[in-house]
Amino acid sequence: MKNLIIASTSTIHGSGYLEYILEELAVFFKNSNSILFIPYARPGGISHDDYTKIVAEAFAKINKTVKGIHEFENPTEAIEHAQAIFVGGGNTFVLTYHLYKNNLIETLQTAVKNGTPYLGTSAGSNICGLTIKTTNDMPIVYPPSFNALAFVPFNINPHYLDPDTNSTHMGETRETRIKEFHNFNTPPVIGLREGSWLQVEDNSIILKGTLNARIFEYNKAPYEVAPETQLNHLK
Amino acid sequence: MKNLIIASTSTIHGSGYLEYILEELAVFFKNSNSILFIPYARPGGISHDDYTKIVAEAFAKINKTVKGIHEFENPTEAIEHAQAIFVGGGNTFVLTYHLYKNNLIETLQTAVKNGTPYLGTSAGSNICGLTIKTTNDMPIVYPPSFNALAFVPFNINPHYLDPDTNSTHMGETRETRIKEFHNFNTPPVIGLREGSWLQVEDNSIILKGTLNARIFEYNKAPYEVAPETQLNHLK
Repeated sequence: MKNLIIASTSTIHGSGYLEYILEELAVFFKNSNSILFIPYARPGGISHDDYTKIVAEAFAKINKTVKGIHEFENPTEAIEHAQAIFVGGGNTFVLTYHLYKNNLIETLQTAVKNGTPYLGTSAGSNICGLTIKTTNDMPIVYPPSFNALAFVPFNINPHYLDPDTNSTHMGETRETRIKEFHNFNTPPVIGLREGSWLQVEDNSIILKGTLNARIFEYNKAPYEVAPETQLNHLK
Repeated sequence: MKNLIIASTSTIHGSGYLEYILEELAVFFKNSNSILFIPYARPGGISHDDYTKIVAEAFAKINKTVKGIHEFENPTEAIEHAQAIFVGGGNTFVLTYHLYKNNLIETLQTAVKNGTPYLGTSAGSNICGLTIKTTNDMPIVYPPSFNALAFVPFNINPHYLDPDTNSTHMGETRETRIKEFHNFNTPPVIGLREGSWLQVEDNSIILKGTLNARIFEYNKAPYEVAPETQLNHLK
C-alpha cells in the first residue's frame, strides 16, 4: 500500500516553491483534499507557522488545504488521521530530533504502510532512507539516533552535486563523502539531483524527472541510471 | 600552558601536504623531536598506517619523527607521554566516535592543559571547539556525543567557503548553515578559510595566515576579521 514521492528538492533554480512538481502532485494527491504538513526541519530557522504558510500557498494552486502538525494538540493523532502527509526540507538533524522527541517515528511508519500518501523534499526525503547518515546538513542538534523511517531499503542523498572540476577548494566532494560512508556502512545510496524524485508504489521504486541519478553501491564503482529506471532491486 | 595551532586545512590548492604551514610548524614543534599522530578521521577511508606514512613524510622535511597512535598498545599512555600531538583531517564524526570509544577525550584535554603542543587540521581542528555541530562532514557514524575538546570557547568551521554567487544549486550555503546553528546554539563560530589558522597560547587566540576569517556571533550580523586579530574576547 506504500505511496511516496521522495524528491531531491522543493525548489529548482528560477522557479517557485514546488512549482516544478506541482502537476505531478495534483495527480499524487488526487484523493486528498487536505495535507498534513510537518515543518520541523525549519529551513533557515523559519517558524513553523511561516513555513506552513509558504506550503499552503503552493498547494492552494492545486486546490489542497494544508495544516501544520504544530497546530494540532496531539501530533500522533494528526498523523493517524491525515489524508496525506508532506515533510518539507530544512535541517535533517533538527527534523529527526523533533520526530523522535514527539515519538512520531513508528506513527509515520504505520501511516505510510497503511497507504497514506507521503511527499518528502530534501530533509523530508533524507528521512525516507535507512538512516540520515548521507544528509548534507550541518549537525546543529544531536538526535537520539541517526536511524530514519526506512521507507526504502537504501539511503538518500538529496541535492546531489557533481564534483566541480574548476574548484580550488580542498573540502571533500559529495562523491568522496559517500565513498567514506561506505567504509562504515553497506546500504546503497541514491544521489538524487535537484529536479529528480523517486516514485514509490508498494515495491516499485522508479526514478522520475528529467535527470539521471547516481547510484553508489558498497564495493562497486558508482554508476548512473536514467529516468524511468526501476530501482526496487537496490538493497 | 595551552599551545595549539588550529588550522582550516592540511593542504592548500596546488601545494603538498602541510607544505604551506611547514615553516610555522618547525617553530611550533621546536622542542619536540617526535610527534604523536592521531589518524582516526581517515580521509577517504585511508588506513591508519597509510595516513601515518603521509604525515611522517611531511614531517621528515623538518626533521621530526611521527608515530601513529594505533601503533601503541595503550593509546591513553601514548597521549600522556607524547612530546607533541597532531590530529589530522578526514571525517569529524569518525574521529569523534573513535576518541570516545577509546576514552581519550579527557586524556587529550589534560595533555593540552599541561602544555603538550597540539596541531589540528580540518576535522582535527573541528574537535578543538565546544562541539562538532559546525562540521561540514557527512554523519557516516553516530558518535555518543557531539561535545568536543573545548580547547577554545567557541566553535570552528574549517574549510570556510563563501557563497558562490553564480551557483544555481539550491542546497544551503555555508553561511545559511551557520545561521541555522544559531537558531539552536549560542556560541560564536569562526569560519576559517583554507590557509588560515588560529594560534592559541594560553588565553591568547590570534588569527594567522593571509586571509580574513568570518565570525558568526549569536544575534549579530556576521563580520570579517583580519590576520593578527586577537580573538580571545569571543565566547
